[in-house]
Amino acid sequence: MSAVKCLGLDHVAIAVSELERAIELYRDAFGLPLSEVEEVPEQKTKAAIFGHGRGRVELLCPTVEDSPVARFLKKRGEGLHHLCLEVEDIEAAMAELRAKGAPLIDQVPRPGAGGAKVAFIHPQGCFGVLVELREGPKGQQAN
Amino acid sequence: MSAVKCLGLDHVAIAVSELERAIELYRDAFGLPLSEVEEVPEQKTKAAIFGHGRGRVELLCPTVEDSPVARFLKKRGEGLHHLCLEVEDIEAAMAELRAKGAPLIDQVPRPGAGGAKVAFIHPQGCFGVLVELREGPKGQQAN
Repeated sequence: MSAVKCLGLDHVAIAVSELERAIELYRDAFGLPLSEVEEVPEQKTKAAIFGHGRGRVELLCPTVEDSPVARFLKKRGEGLHHLCLEVEDIEAAMAELRAKGAPLIDQVPRPGAGGAKVAFIHPQGCFGVLVELREGPKGQQAN
Repeated sequence: MSAVKCLGLDHVAIAVSELERAIELYRDAFGLPLSEVEEVPEQKTKAAIFGHGRGRVELLCPTVEDSPVARFLKKRGEGLHHLCLEVEDIEAAMAELRAKGAPLIDQVPRPGAGGAKVAFIHPQGCFGVLVELREGPKGQQAN
């Protein structure tokens, strides 16, 4: 069984309680370019994205109390939340990882921001790291 | 006071207890290209680095029981450990962040892997994230 065709680190995500204050640090103190602030209704979060293409930094803030990121904040506090790997073909990647016994949270890809397809793998199968796989819309893959 | 001149996400680091097993996941299952495995005696760790340039993924494994990464593992378990931002001028970045009240762990830059200069900022000042600043050796900055 061959490995997944992973193209690189798409982004790293940080869970925060107050989005505006966290944006101030990353934009105004660290000087990272803020690309976009968007609501992600499927995940009940508002996200601030810094940079373009591969290696983006994403701040995630829950919009309601009953959401995965809100539960993460209650349990672990603010901090690094997940990393996202860009893959060429998410269905093929999921099939290969399933065959290797990886604990997929999503059994089929779900829609992600910007027309991407995404799926999460449980931290238990990734040395404590919540890993997101992302296949960008065709013709718009990060670089 | 202007912002730090941050060039982007240099790498994200993951603390693991068994380096070889974690390498197998990232290289053989996810298909990330393993660039280097190196001992970092100053931090009492062995590191496996995936990818090149910006947006690398780094696995960190302690080489002795009394080290910062070993203490992290005891306290929090395996998982995302820190993110590293590449800066143009680390001394200028540290001066600007100090003036803004950021809790610097290092008061002067320390030597990092590959001839870089690095410094850490305490998670208390970065919404729960341990942030490393890195200035690559001149002429060899990541891109």
